[in-house]
Amino acid sequence: MSLLTIGSAAYDTLETPFGRRERALGGSGVYASFAASFFAESRLIGVVGEDWNPEYSALLRSRNVDLAGLEVRAGEKTMFWDGRYFDDMNQRETRCFEANVMGGDYVPLVPDAYKASPYVFLGNMAPTTHMALLDAIETPKLVVADTMDFYINGMRAELLQLLKRIDGLILNDGEAALLTGDRSPISAGRKILELGPKFVVVKKGEHGAMWIGRDEIYLVPAFPTDKVVDPTGAGDSFAGALMGSLAESDDLSPESIKKALLSATVVASLNVEGFSMESFQKATRADVDARIAAFKKALV
Amino acid sequence: MSLLTIGSAAYDTLETPFGRRERALGGSGVYASFAASFFAESRLIGVVGEDWNPEYSALLRSRNVDLAGLEVRAGEKTMFWDGRYFDDMNQRETRCFEANVMGGDYVPLVPDAYKASPYVFLGNMAPTTHMALLDAIETPKLVVADTMDFYINGMRAELLQLLKRIDGLILNDGEAALLTGDRSPISAGRKILELGPKFVVVKKGEHGAMWIGRDEIYLVPAFPTDKVVDPTGAGDSFAGALMGSLAESDDLSPESIKKALLSATVVASLNVEGFSMESFQKATRADVDARIAAFKKALV
Repeated sequence: MSLLTIGSAAYDTLETPFGRRERALGGSGVYASFAASFFAESRLIGVVGEDWNPEYSALLRSRNVDLAGLEVRAGEKTMFWDGRYFDDMNQRETRCFEANVMGGDYVPLVPDAYKASPYVFLGNMAPTTHMALLDAIETPKLVVADTMDFYINGMRAELLQLLKRIDGLILNDGEAALLTGDRSPISAGRKILELGPKFVVVKKGEHGAMWIGRDEIYLVPAFPTDKVVDPTGAGDSFAGALMGSLAESDDLSPESIKKALLSATVVASLNVEGFSMESFQKATRADVDARIAAFKKALV
Repeated sequence: MSLLTIGSAAYDTLETPFGRRERALGGSGVYASFAASFFAESRLIGVVGEDWNPEYSALLRSRNVDLAGLEVRAGEKTMFWDGRYFDDMNQRETRCFEANVMGGDYVPLVPDAYKASPYVFLGNMAPTTHMALLDAIETPKLVVADTMDFYINGMRAELLQLLKRIDGLILNDGEAALLTGDRSPISAGRKILELGPKFVVVKKGEHGAMWIGRDEIYLVPAFPTDKVVDPTGAGDSFAGALMGSLAESDDLSPESIKKALLSATVVASLNVEGFSMESFQKATRADVDARIAAFKKALV
């Protein structure tokens, strides 16, 4: 089944202990739609400026990411982020952020061909944008959203509205604590279920992730690697691969959910091994499957 | 096969957000030997004072923990710890610690019947005491030690000597970082392998644990529970159950190691559900096996 992702496409200037890149390919929608493309027909909705590098679109298209929903707006500039990761790469600082074309109220343009998309991933964007997209989609099978501290703090009412319209929420442990006031990922997750979603996926970075449903819980450790060159997009790749794998399985059986969590973990680990999309773009489905097999050997 | 544990037997005065207990049963050797008793013949070596409560010995004996090696020393007092856990129970403070009979150089008395013990767990004690015990044991099959910041900082030379004489080391992530200067549990674990042991088990508290060997790695998440009443002894129970399960399997195959990590995780989760040994002492092997089965359903 096909997966429709909405999210940002951006230029990222990145500095980590391993080096630096200028205006590299980035954005939540880019990472997520690319990650999903290992498993399912992947469609991206987003907006960039007239400075957008067509080679970046070509890269996504080479993996069959459908960009009919990627609007290129004349007279505008693409979103830009300049960030530095510290020696402890769990810590980072934003040196510069320019929303540019993503500033103001971005209303997504939804191609007619996308309106029956069965699987929908609402990547990191304003909950108002998420709801505008949902208004244009006809009876999707599964809608999952990501969010972040900026919207939890600044658009809480809109986020609570959105939570009533989605099947699942993906967020990290700090964001779950911020949203609920509960530091325990399990009880924070259960509090979020009371706000609407049927399941919550709490990402814990180097400590893995947990899927919390009404009657079930699933746990996945992080892939055991020290080869982290650039963590940018790890969470977006995780979410995109999770959704792509669920779209491929086309059900929410325990087996499909477990396979999706394994796939998400492994795809995120492939993403962080190079700057931006540098190593990620070389990975194939065979690489993903081989790493899943190796990962399974380490799991109890 | 039988497991010999050396460790402390102590009185613990405990305060957590859930209440308070005075002079309850505690000590690394007590928790570990009890945890091991679910799986194997369990023997405890340690020393207490003349104030030792015989009911505590009766409790351990009721689970077939062999106390022939528990010395009761006249004219001395049992080790005592008074600690308080904060609302975030990962944080605690020691209000009072009296080594008492465990002060000075404790030289363990090893009953003849223990000298051929095939499995040996060196619970949290000075590395000099660990080595004195090893001097008395004939060709054990597997020796695993625990350690802590106090010995890593204060007896590093002796600890490095000990590392050359053991098969495995169990410690938490903070201790692994302190010993190696490396914050990543995986690379810290690998550095410890260079110091002697064939494997290292890094405990990450609420984030689970990892077994790091020369050519393999195994990962186990924590048991998903919010029911933590008193974390005291969680690490000791984990280690004791791990060793008990390995002694039961009597090999280091991947299957046995995975079963031991599952058992250790589940037994530690049973321990923390009550103060001291209050709920732990009621748990049966059937409870452990039922919880392992439930846990496996949550694992990918």
